[in-house]
Amino acid sequence: MTTQHSKPLALRNVTVTDPFWHTEQELVRTAVIPFQWNALNDNMPGAAPSYCMHNFKAAAAQNARRDEKGQKSYLPEFSYRGFAVFPKDGEEPDPSKFYGFVFQDTDFSKWIEAVGYSLTQHPDAELEKTADAAIDIVCAAQLDNGYLDTYYILNGMDRAFHNLRWHHELYCLGHLVEGAIAYYEGTGKDKLLKTAERFADYTAEYFGPKEGQCKGYPGHEIAEMALVRLVEVTGARKYLDLAKFFIDERGTEPNYFLAEDKRDKDSGYTDTNWDFDPAYAQAHKPVREQDEAVGHAVRAGYLYSGMAAVAKLSDDPTLLRACRTLWRNIVDKKLYITGGIGGTNNGEAFSYNYDLPNDTAYSESCAAISLAFFARRMLEIEPKAEYADVMEQALYNTTLAGMALDGKSFFYVNPLEVNPYASHRDKRIGHVKTVRQKWFGCACCPPNIARIVESVQEYAYTVADDASTLYTHLYMGGVAKATLNGAEVTLDVAANLPWRGDGTVAVRLDAPAEFTLAFRLPGWAGDDPAVALKASGEQDGRVTREVRDGYLYLTGEWRDGDEIAFDFPMPVRMLAANPMVREDVGKVAFVRGPITFCAEEKDNGANLHLLHADVDAVLADPASVKVVPFTFEAGATGIDDKGQGEVDPVSRRMVRLEVPAWREPVPAGASAGSPAFAPLYADYAPVRREPVTATLIPYFAWANRGENEMSVFLRA
Amino acid sequence: MTTQHSKPLALRNVTVTDPFWHTEQELVRTAVIPFQWNALNDNMPGAAPSYCMHNFKAAAAQNARRDEKGQKSYLPEFSYRGFAVFPKDGEEPDPSKFYGFVFQDTDFSKWIEAVGYSLTQHPDAELEKTADAAIDIVCAAQLDNGYLDTYYILNGMDRAFHNLRWHHELYCLGHLVEGAIAYYEGTGKDKLLKTAERFADYTAEYFGPKEGQCKGYPGHEIAEMALVRLVEVTGARKYLDLAKFFIDERGTEPNYFLAEDKRDKDSGYTDTNWDFDPAYAQAHKPVREQDEAVGHAVRAGYLYSGMAAVAKLSDDPTLLRACRTLWRNIVDKKLYITGGIGGTNNGEAFSYNYDLPNDTAYSESCAAISLAFFARRMLEIEPKAEYADVMEQALYNTTLAGMALDGKSFFYVNPLEVNPYASHRDKRIGHVKTVRQKWFGCACCPPNIARIVESVQEYAYTVADDASTLYTHLYMGGVAKATLNGAEVTLDVAANLPWRGDGTVAVRLDAPAEFTLAFRLPGWAGDDPAVALKASGEQDGRVTREVRDGYLYLTGEWRDGDEIAFDFPMPVRMLAANPMVREDVGKVAFVRGPITFCAEEKDNGANLHLLHADVDAVLADPASVKVVPFTFEAGATGIDDKGQGEVDPVSRRMVRLEVPAWREPVPAGASAGSPAFAPLYADYAPVRREPVTATLIPYFAWANRGENEMSVFLRA
Repeated sequence: MTTQHSKPLALRNVTVTDPFWHTEQELVRTAVIPFQWNALNDNMPGAAPSYCMHNFKAAAAQNARRDEKGQKSYLPEFSYRGFAVFPKDGEEPDPSKFYGFVFQDTDFSKWIEAVGYSLTQHPDAELEKTADAAIDIVCAAQLDNGYLDTYYILNGMDRAFHNLRWHHELYCLGHLVEGAIAYYEGTGKDKLLKTAERFADYTAEYFGPKEGQCKGYPGHEIAEMALVRLVEVTGARKYLDLAKFFIDERGTEPNYFLAEDKRDKDSGYTDTNWDFDPAYAQAHKPVREQDEAVGHAVRAGYLYSGMAAVAKLSDDPTLLRACRTLWRNIVDKKLYITGGIGGTNNGEAFSYNYDLPNDTAYSESCAAISLAFFARRMLEIEPKAEYADVMEQALYNTTLAGMALDGKSFFYVNPLEVNPYASHRDKRIGHVKTVRQKWFGCACCPPNIARIVESVQEYAYTVADDASTLYTHLYMGGVAKATLNGAEVTLDVAANLPWRGDGTVAVRLDAPAEFTLAFRLPGWAGDDPAVALKASGEQDGRVTREVRDGYLYLTGEWRDGDEIAFDFPMPVRMLAANPMVREDVGKVAFVRGPITFCAEEKDNGANLHLLHADVDAVLADPASVKVVPFTFEAGATGIDDKGQGEVDPVSRRMVRLEVPAWREPVPAGASAGSPAFAPLYADYAPVRREPVTATLIPYFAWANRGENEMSVFLRA
Repeated sequence: MTTQHSKPLALRNVTVTDPFWHTEQELVRTAVIPFQWNALNDNMPGAAPSYCMHNFKAAAAQNARRDEKGQKSYLPEFSYRGFAVFPKDGEEPDPSKFYGFVFQDTDFSKWIEAVGYSLTQHPDAELEKTADAAIDIVCAAQLDNGYLDTYYILNGMDRAFHNLRWHHELYCLGHLVEGAIAYYEGTGKDKLLKTAERFADYTAEYFGPKEGQCKGYPGHEIAEMALVRLVEVTGARKYLDLAKFFIDERGTEPNYFLAEDKRDKDSGYTDTNWDFDPAYAQAHKPVREQDEAVGHAVRAGYLYSGMAAVAKLSDDPTLLRACRTLWRNIVDKKLYITGGIGGTNNGEAFSYNYDLPNDTAYSESCAAISLAFFARRMLEIEPKAEYADVMEQALYNTTLAGMALDGKSFFYVNPLEVNPYASHRDKRIGHVKTVRQKWFGCACCPPNIARIVESVQEYAYTVADDASTLYTHLYMGGVAKATLNGAEVTLDVAANLPWRGDGTVAVRLDAPAEFTLAFRLPGWAGDDPAVALKASGEQDGRVTREVRDGYLYLTGEWRDGDEIAFDFPMPVRMLAANPMVREDVGKVAFVRGPITFCAEEKDNGANLHLLHADVDAVLADPASVKVVPFTFEAGATGIDDKGQGEVDPVSRRMVRLEVPAWREPVPAGASAGSPAFAPLYADYAPVRREPVTATLIPYFAWANRGENEMSVFLRA
């Protein structure tokens, strides 16, 4: 039996009533989306202006005047390393000029994407009106030829598509396409979609294998997977050709980015004086030869997602092989236990194999999201539970950790260990924040979290291309509708993830029908999770079961009212990292279901590095770890006058772990912050163990009670 | 009984026949000094030119032409962040221009200092002739007014002493003074000394408390302690006044450096665009209020040495109190077990309290040397064994580790843990080299090692100011001469440090005399080291003993032929760091006598992070650690075509430790460098222990057999 491809259920066919995800989606809908709108209109007191809508308005006004700039050099007067332009101190922004980062247009695109998803589930006439007005401005900014990137439109088109390595026009294209599709699918309105198509058409003319076409490809990937989405929506294969061209061309010799770099340096015309490292953008060799995930982690995750999307659509076995190899490298050597990727802040990048530092981690929220994108697309190619396990891990942990429980502040960097005393003194961890930030000028993560949370149900189900099988990848309360072998099937799912492993799936049908329902057997659910899932149709032999690649396939005749009951065991798992991970030798982390836990100072006192899990006690009696449902009370005042660290009071039901533990006492007088003294080195003696109970909370909930120490791994 | 000050025995009164230090001194004399001479004359194929003598010659020629530049702006055309100037690629250096770092003059001063020490012990007519010729050039570069810094002489004097925060004129003055004194004391020739005095005189006119005098102070300290040396040599108190002014003024409000920074930025005239952080140069508050060692570690060590020197000479109790406080902070919270200081490469600086990372350590060779300077000066104020213990630790470990066993390559940075796989991939440890380097353009460490090694016997003895007591701080084979209570006393010392704790001190006297011989009781020599030291004069009651502050005072009538025999126990100590040192929790290091040991991959295989000391076995039977004298065979070919890592074949007798240990096995398939796979996270299980014997070699000898892993701390 060969594995066949599958595709997600459209968002409109799945609702989320799940208390966990419903809460998160409501946060995004009621807090983040309005917040974002204010941000991209520079209406956020105390936050860095985005200038996003400012730029679109300026470009639209310029278009209206028909004074499109022709051959003017685009280098603006004030440039921050070529990536951002801001008004001089104290000056008002000039309404005709571009400001912000070169990729600032994507602030809009990510917002409209989240809006589109939100409107699908939750119609809102006022929001739709606001969005339509914004879309009018954006569409008015497009040049007649289809080009749409306000940085070049406003600064001069002579250099458009000339700095692919550092600038982000193709990244802007990708986000515009994804936002336009989401809005189209959410509202049926295609104005923005047509604009995106025109920009894609212009791009497809500009780039390609033909003589005279540019042989470049995106410096920051995303267009590849976005173009595949555009194929799916429009049916136009030319977009697949373009995506495939970008992927096939990437990293070939002579290296396009290095040639661009040399050309600019030779001519003295460069707005960055850095040497470009092709590995930073995964362009160090052809993608099919890449066997290690390297470079900027978000770029990498987007590329791999695009590769998987193209591999699926074009049935490309060599590209699929590369995807599998890169997946294995990530999952076996470069994945944080929080579902995060990107071990180093140097280039916000993957570090070398097995280098997964806890305190200096980068683990960008967007990178975890990109990993979920990649996993989802691999699932569409071949349903294997490992993809869904990792996708779930990325979604429930690092992705959600990126957002405060009140939806109003955000982490870009998601360390696994934080010591505020060090953070305030050590430039080497200057990228690690101890509390969430309101908004960043370089606003990638908050809107990325918004768009994935608002569309999370798209990650839950896929339907096989032959419509024979409906896959359930994530267990999420709500209703999913699909057409299977011609029958309209509705699944009514009740689930209690991530806190409990039980639930039911009720099947609604007009008439009995033959099809397969496939359910993922989570990797966290013990040795034989298949026994925890039973279909009523099995009792009378109508439905038979088969386990393959971590999925339970239930095949046969289904009837209205059939029910699948599941009760996956959710044991607390005490995990150790592979000993090649130097940072984690002698340490353990606690995981239950999809949730990774962590210790915070609020619950466990300071000096978490001296808190040891009593691993012997846990091994002797796994039940010595208590699983305690409780109401988590978030709410913390900011640590500075910019409001960083503020969290509104929020109560959330969740689960904590109480783990047998012991503390190594701090010697009298040994305090980093006090002038008291104690010897720095002394004869080794076995440590005196002070028994304590370690309280662990879900990682995603950390730093919602003010600044404090945190650690995912505990010493064993 | 009040403690009284003491001063070192002059170099000419102490010889070193000690096999250990004699070997090191011969290395410096025969390898480093000629090497240095070639370096500062740009005769080192493959090494960055120093331009040091080039600059002096250019300045001397300019002086001869009497065309001293007056008001010309000094900003040279090509400037590397304001600190160095080099010819354009492919261009020949212009004989009339300055090149190199702004402090390049000190290459000469450090060389002449080592030469002076060397000539004291080992007359060498040819070397002296070379030195005299160099001195003629240097002296000819001095302006008529006494100023002598070739950077400003050649680039225009209008800005001399105007960039104290970043530039190094006063640092050049300090090194010139120290070099001149060493050469004067070694040869009796005072030409360079007079030149140094004239520069000091000019400086003493320029800076000071009087109206119209500049209120600045050194950006890089050293002048303070050098000026005190000049007082000792010349008797001129004005140099003490200047040193005291520099120290008293430092860090007062308004902050001189910040004012300088603002002035340059306001006027648009600046050759650095960094914001100056006064703490980097220990100028964040008045020195008497400083209670934490901060900023650039070498600068700090030099400042504290200068503070101690001034405190001693001026009997300044508040300054002494600050010295003691800073000492405690270093020793209790910021000292590596290798005697190194400076936990972070950000600013080559002290990190925060208890932050002593092993793999990202800076621990510059020069910083360990500066700590020895500080310790020595504290010893001169108050003989307490702790100062000598730390001084010895810095000398035997990090200072010597700075130089290869063939004397031909050098470490600036001295990590306590190295993993070459990581080093070649991780920019965060880009400052950490895995093998020694031939020579650096910024050549501070090699000549600093040369000058301290060539004068190490000055650290061994001091005589109390009332000439009643001769202190032995370090046990070093050789002959020391002192005048005690009017009697000429010679000590003939045989010692076997650092490998054995036994030895004898024979007393030679013309006639019986009353005085005190005080011997340091090393901190490493067990609980009651005083019992291990016996004087023959004690048997008949002529000599009585008293232990105070870690010194054994032997007082009474001494006769020719008296002997003091010592046999300090030298147990292997298995030390643990204070648990506040997060990096070292659960780890131990092995130390014996003054020597800190480390494990190298050559002896123990790869993945040293999985090599655990069997601490239970060692605690149960300390004799399970074997102390093995052996002949260490150094010699490694370079790892790159610049010759980095080359060590000539050298055999050295030393001691290794064989420690009961065990290894955690690497799971099958888990290799950073291979595409094989193994799970990244798995259920915790107690580690399978593979018993092994860990072989530890002295830290100073590491990286003499090619590139490999190294670790000082082992997991317990």
